[in-house]
Amino acid sequence: MLGLKKRASRPGTAPGTLQAPARRGTEGVSIEVIDYSAGHLEEKTVAAVDELRGYRGKSSVTWINVVGLHDVDLFYWLGEHFGIHSLALEDVLNVGQRPKQEDYANHDFIVMKQVDMGSAGLATEQISMFLGSDYVITVQEIPGDAFDPVRERIRRGRARIRGAGADYLAYALVDALIDRFFPVLERYGEHIEEIEEALLDNPGSELLNEIHAIKKDLLVLRRIAWPHREVIGGLERRETPLIHAETRVFLRDCYDHCVQIMDILETYRDLTGSMLDVYLSSVSLRMNEVMKVLTVMASIFIPLTFIAGVYGMNFDPKASRWNMPELDWAYGYPAFWAVIVVLGAAMIWFFRRKDWL
Amino acid sequence: MLGLKKRASRPGTAPGTLQAPARRGTEGVSIEVIDYSAGHLEEKTVAAVDELRGYRGKSSVTWINVVGLHDVDLFYWLGEHFGIHSLALEDVLNVGQRPKQEDYANHDFIVMKQVDMGSAGLATEQISMFLGSDYVITVQEIPGDAFDPVRERIRRGRARIRGAGADYLAYALVDALIDRFFPVLERYGEHIEEIEEALLDNPGSELLNEIHAIKKDLLVLRRIAWPHREVIGGLERRETPLIHAETRVFLRDCYDHCVQIMDILETYRDLTGSMLDVYLSSVSLRMNEVMKVLTVMASIFIPLTFIAGVYGMNFDPKASRWNMPELDWAYGYPAFWAVIVVLGAAMIWFFRRKDWL
Amino acid sequence: MLGLKKRASRPGTAPGTLQAPARRGTEGVSIEVIDYSAGHLEEKTVAAVDELRGYRGKSSVTWINVVGLHDVDLFYWLGEHFGIHSLALEDVLNVGQRPKQEDYANHDFIVMKQVDMGSAGLATEQISMFLGSDYVITVQEIPGDAFDPVRERIRRGRARIRGAGADYLAYALVDALIDRFFPVLERYGEHIEEIEEALLDNPGSELLNEIHAIKKDLLVLRRIAWPHREVIGGLERRETPLIHAETRVFLRDCYDHCVQIMDILETYRDLTGSMLDVYLSSVSLRMNEVMKVLTVMASIFIPLTFIAGVYGMNFDPKASRWNMPELDWAYGYPAFWAVIVVLGAAMIWFFRRKDWL
Amino acid sequence: MLGLKKRASRPGTAPGTLQAPARRGTEGVSIEVIDYSAGHLEEKTVAAVDELRGYRGKSSVTWINVVGLHDVDLFYWLGEHFGIHSLALEDVLNVGQRPKQEDYANHDFIVMKQVDMGSAGLATEQISMFLGSDYVITVQEIPGDAFDPVRERIRRGRARIRGAGADYLAYALVDALIDRFFPVLERYGEHIEEIEEALLDNPGSELLNEIHAIKKDLLVLRRIAWPHREVIGGLERRETPLIHAETRVFLRDCYDHCVQIMDILETYRDLTGSMLDVYLSSVSLRMNEVMKVLTVMASIFIPLTFIAGVYGMNFDPKASRWNMPELDWAYGYPAFWAVIVVLGAAMIWFFRRKDWL
Amino acid sequence: MLGLKKRASRPGTAPGTLQAPARRGTEGVSIEVIDYSAGHLEEKTVAAVDELRGYRGKSSVTWINVVGLHDVDLFYWLGEHFGIHSLALEDVLNVGQRPKQEDYANHDFIVMKQVDMGSAGLATEQISMFLGSDYVITVQEIPGDAFDPVRERIRRGRARIRGAGADYLAYALVDALIDRFFPVLERYGEHIEEIEEALLDNPGSELLNEIHAIKKDLLVLRRIAWPHREVIGGLERRETPLIHAETRVFLRDCYDHCVQIMDILETYRDLTGSMLDVYLSSVSLRMNEVMKVLTVMASIFIPLTFIAGVYGMNFDPKASRWNMPELDWAYGYPAFWAVIVVLGAAMIWFFRRKDWL
Repeated sequence: MLGLKKRASRPGTAPGTLQAPARRGTEGVSIEVIDYSAGHLEEKTVAAVDELRGYRGKSSVTWINVVGLHDVDLFYWLGEHFGIHSLALEDVLNVGQRPKQEDYANHDFIVMKQVDMGSAGLATEQISMFLGSDYVITVQEIPGDAFDPVRERIRRGRARIRGAGADYLAYALVDALIDRFFPVLERYGEHIEEIEEALLDNPGSELLNEIHAIKKDLLVLRRIAWPHREVIGGLERRETPLIHAETRVFLRDCYDHCVQIMDILETYRDLTGSMLDVYLSSVSLRMNEVMKVLTVMASIFIPLTFIAGVYGMNFDPKASRWNMPELDWAYGYPAFWAVIVVLGAAMIWFFRRKDWL
Repeated sequence: MLGLKKRASRPGTAPGTLQAPARRGTEGVSIEVIDYSAGHLEEKTVAAVDELRGYRGKSSVTWINVVGLHDVDLFYWLGEHFGIHSLALEDVLNVGQRPKQEDYANHDFIVMKQVDMGSAGLATEQISMFLGSDYVITVQEIPGDAFDPVRERIRRGRARIRGAGADYLAYALVDALIDRFFPVLERYGEHIEEIEEALLDNPGSELLNEIHAIKKDLLVLRRIAWPHREVIGGLERRETPLIHAETRVFLRDCYDHCVQIMDILETYRDLTGSMLDVYLSSVSLRMNEVMKVLTVMASIFIPLTFIAGVYGMNFDPKASRWNMPELDWAYGYPAFWAVIVVLGAAMIWFFRRKDWL
Repeated sequence: MLGLKKRASRPGTAPGTLQAPARRGTEGVSIEVIDYSAGHLEEKTVAAVDELRGYRGKSSVTWINVVGLHDVDLFYWLGEHFGIHSLALEDVLNVGQRPKQEDYANHDFIVMKQVDMGSAGLATEQISMFLGSDYVITVQEIPGDAFDPVRERIRRGRARIRGAGADYLAYALVDALIDRFFPVLERYGEHIEEIEEALLDNPGSELLNEIHAIKKDLLVLRRIAWPHREVIGGLERRETPLIHAETRVFLRDCYDHCVQIMDILETYRDLTGSMLDVYLSSVSLRMNEVMKVLTVMASIFIPLTFIAGVYGMNFDPKASRWNMPELDWAYGYPAFWAVIVVLGAAMIWFFRRKDWL
Repeated sequence: MLGLKKRASRPGTAPGTLQAPARRGTEGVSIEVIDYSAGHLEEKTVAAVDELRGYRGKSSVTWINVVGLHDVDLFYWLGEHFGIHSLALEDVLNVGQRPKQEDYANHDFIVMKQVDMGSAGLATEQISMFLGSDYVITVQEIPGDAFDPVRERIRRGRARIRGAGADYLAYALVDALIDRFFPVLERYGEHIEEIEEALLDNPGSELLNEIHAIKKDLLVLRRIAWPHREVIGGLERRETPLIHAETRVFLRDCYDHCVQIMDILETYRDLTGSMLDVYLSSVSLRMNEVMKVLTVMASIFIPLTFIAGVYGMNFDPKASRWNMPELDWAYGYPAFWAVIVVLGAAMIWFFRRKDWL
Repeated sequence: MLGLKKRASRPGTAPGTLQAPARRGTEGVSIEVIDYSAGHLEEKTVAAVDELRGYRGKSSVTWINVVGLHDVDLFYWLGEHFGIHSLALEDVLNVGQRPKQEDYANHDFIVMKQVDMGSAGLATEQISMFLGSDYVITVQEIPGDAFDPVRERIRRGRARIRGAGADYLAYALVDALIDRFFPVLERYGEHIEEIEEALLDNPGSELLNEIHAIKKDLLVLRRIAWPHREVIGGLERRETPLIHAETRVFLRDCYDHCVQIMDILETYRDLTGSMLDVYLSSVSLRMNEVMKVLTVMASIFIPLTFIAGVYGMNFDPKASRWNMPELDWAYGYPAFWAVIVVLGAAMIWFFRRKDWL
């Protein structure tokens, strides 16, 4: 939850040894291939990994999407046939990676995070991507719909993506993942506004809990979003023949979105910080109110009770003429009430002046 | 409100596809053209977009101001005739952009925010600008008066602007937008001073609300103002034939204004942060006062009530000579009052020494 | 007060249009000239601006000090005869500038702030300076004594300044302005120490006010002092024939003073921040004390009052032998007091053990 | 504890003088040697230091692991035979070093910290490392299992490490030390989540203590982890023939882990900071609850007690018909109870409306 | 105390004018000379400044240590004979300098601060140093023992320092000054741990005072320590023939110590910040406890007192059979006690369930 996933590799394992992650992922692993060029489109679900062999060295762009991390042999096979470094493959299976972009001899390796606002709160999934000259391989932990918009665009015959290369496909996939941040942020924005409204009404402990929970989620989101900026900035600026100049303009646009995400996250973070302060002030304010009621009630009635207590004393008026002569007065009791009313009114006037009533 | 506008493009849309924004803008779209040189001035409201065709390739400076974003065809037309990249056009219509400056082959693209202090609080509007060698195109979401000062200056025959090129016009428009920050900041400055005065008098919950609201607005303003600095710094320093050396001196002046805006925003932000602390201290201080009144009242009268209670007891003096002989004393009742007065005075003296009275 | 002076220029004014500031400055404008070289000294108050004409092109150093901003024609005249850019002149009259240093073709333009600790608190004044090859023009808003030490040094025949050029004069003037920060800081330092002593004695609301006021002043001072560092650093490091190598050593010394001022300001700022925390803790601590007194008094006497109340009840011992037989006991009343004393002592012992007494 | 270990060298000692540390380490010093190449493996515990002489100048990789710092002569011997600078040797024995990496003429000197989560809390140990062209010397303060995974990998005949050089061995050792951070962080993460759960239930003083203790430990961890990043970044990027290009890819991976550690530490730090705020708010919230109970009880019963007190007064109805006629009423007592019940109910209704009950 | 020493120079003084500081220093000024090479050592206290003349131009290293700042003529003499810039000499006498390092034509000027933990708290003293090709001049404000370790090492015939040049001597002196930070930091570390232990036991106002005082001292220390890092970093990296390559290795070691000092100071600062938060929470926690006692006592006894008050009323059972029939019941009084005990027990049970007892 705090973003510290158990690392898959057992201590004592040499780097580059592949191990299926213990915790999540689907049982089976499925491989989808989309092969396309301006005038050609082939979509297929691959049963045996050897079928992928046919897609190398063609002029069309091949997108291989692997869902599930449990078939270690598949990744060994991919490493061998696409010349992928074992460290990169290890990072694919170790799903606790920080988003990053690394260039290897003949391909680029990109790790990103897909964010979702599920019913159980913020959920993240690692998406790994390999960009070669004519292929893109993506690896997802679990089946999901993040890439559906891109698939749609490929299927539409005349879209720009059909005429562009693998680099544009990679951009489109990266952009689709970045775009998923916006609805998540919107949810947090709405939640923050809800809390702001509740803040002065009824600062209970659930609210405190919620503020802390949002703060925590924003910390996690920030830790995830921040390196994405570097990833996309790296793709945009780096000297490499894998990415063409026309695609860089689009990556710059995607980079702007990243900066915007960071901006919003920083603002939200400052707001939640301020909300905690407002909360504390609000609790103090309510305590003030409680104290005022107590003080007013006690300050008015305690002296009055004292006076009533005085005339409840049993000093014997018969024993001495000094003893409580008031008791024998003709108007002693009305006089008592007069004193009580005057005193009470004076108190109320005093507290009104102090603005406590 | 929190600066997260809904992005216009539906998920699954290819980048560069133009869509009219759903939420705001005028129904119709209006196009004003001002064409001028040192000795020539033409102002006109254009009905059909084709009329703009005549303004290309002339020696005079042409300023095309488009108000409203709903005519998507217009923007396609502009893109085609002025060679504007589709990504830039998409940003014009997606009004949640971060202020930015991008250079394309034959024109500069600038996104800025116009700020206003309306009756409903801080309002922002996106202003897009295209700077070519002999034209400036500006796009506003809604009709407004931000550019009126510039229009006035163009109309005055002998102003510097009439002799200068399109780059000076762009500077004048940018400067007019930056200048709008100052009255807004002034309003916040006045508001902060009002709150500061109210802070120690009556720290109620509305005040807390107001401090938090200002803090929030300042966060939004800061997020808007910050990238403006980069925009103008970029215009000033960048190597481009579109901007002449003489104009750069003016842009440096405008950049200074941006820095000043950031300075003021930082100061205000620190002040509101400090105000929250003062608020909390002030609430605590008042509670202290309340508690003192309660404590003084209770501490004085509770012991006195106890003494009165003692002599209200019904131990029978007749049953034993040890039982409450005070009740039969000749001066028992005056002695009681003497004790009460001495005790009360001692208490008051004690609380005075403690500075609680 | 918050450092946001109303900008002089009306919206819609072209940049470089000169306007006298509305708010302050003397009625008349006075011009003093000091012309000196190693063996020559001339001091004069100039009545008509034309008299300045004679001071151009001489081998001696000319210092023109203008006091007051209301004579717009004078500044037009200066602009024309000394080749000063209209934007720089506009900045001279717009007294809300940020300290800055700009280089124009044949002169340097420097804006600084003079700080003073007046009876009404922190006062700042804008000082503008033009450094040419053989002249320095300074512009003050109101008459003041900031430059008197420099005048004194010029009058003393054998001082280094008499043999040096205009750049050394400019350094001496800048240094004189920077030196004015130190007594101001010293005053704040003393004030902070006074508050620190008062903090635990009597944390009243005036103190809270004072801490907030100091914090605010330090924010303003910091905003003023910070760009001075850049100004002087710029003068020291910049490649320009206007400033000689020997003068740069002195500017480096002046830069060190700026850094020292920033250091002190940061320390003061951290201290005032900490003081607010201490204040809040101190208020809580005193409330603790108040609460302890209340709790001790109430906890001791409320149970005792209950017991006294019990024996004030009118259950009739004659109606039943179960009814308050204590009242008829021979030692009932002394036993009552014994119980009261033991109970009271137990309470006091309990509260002592808890360290509340 | 606060990370300020007593520095071993007595004041007045020349730099480079070796002194055994006073405080910890084993009594004896043990030396293990592992010498290996692709086809050869020799493991040995060395009794006399002279035996090490045979391992220089061979084509195999030699790893010398020294455990214990008390044999100063051994380090003089190493310095002499492996050409190690006396300042580096001094740093080995002065165990309070900051992690660092220094390059000397013919070897690299690396200082790292091994972290452990012992029963007594966070424990750190200094590990020094010398990397030559064909040897790695490691020095541990006390025997430990940090390097066991690497030993295991060397023993397994066909592992990559057997075919690689001394630089890969150094990488493997550095990686093993960095990997030890993760379980430690995981423990802190679990602890933070435990505290978060306890935070709203029962904010006692132990919890406050624990939060402060975690904060302190995280500060120490951060101070240790931060320079590790520089160490590994330095190893990866520096131009040196000691480290081959293939190994740099692995170091980049290790660097990513460092960045991840820093990320997690920052997140934890922000969380503990937020937890302190939540704690304070939570304490205030509970006080609010306590005060409400007191206020409700006191506000209901104090007025009622006053009324009861009134009718306990001894004004004599016989002395005057104005004196307490209620006492003689037929339904005086039921009326009293009626008043009490109505008043009490009104109070309860009032407090319910205020949401205090 | 706040680090703002009164600057010695009177306003209006030309830069480079020497003035003895007004406030501290010994009456007389003493000059010690140590002249040494590998085989030669001469120590002497110089009475007349002219004796120094003989030490210039020899192959041995000359260390001139001046104690006291009052003999202005001495400094003029030094300036003349060692070619020292008057600005540097002014800085020597103006003891409020920031630590810095400046290079002049034929010598280096270094200003450092010596820190001590005296009985009156943190004490700092300015140490100035001039490094020439064959001499080091140090100037101390008051006599002290900071340099004794270096003297000892010089006296020991075979130490490395005897064979090295003036640059190594300067390093040794700088290192001796930096080393003085460690015992001071250790004292603060111990003090912080003491406060941490006291924090939850007894958060009195002295503790608050102490935390604030430590925070203040750490701010001062930080302001002093920070520029030392630049000073030593500057010496290590700068291109100058005055410092040899071998000495740079030692300066790097010294630089590491500076970084370590900054690390520790940052950690201490974070800790004291956290301690203030813990203090405030702790005060709130204790108030909570106090309030609970009050609430429990008042809530139990106030209702009971009311009941006792009821049966103290004088409604006459004889006047009506509705009037207080309980008083005539046979078991009225025991029933009263039964009610009291049941009610009290219920209250206690309620408060126990709420965990307030």
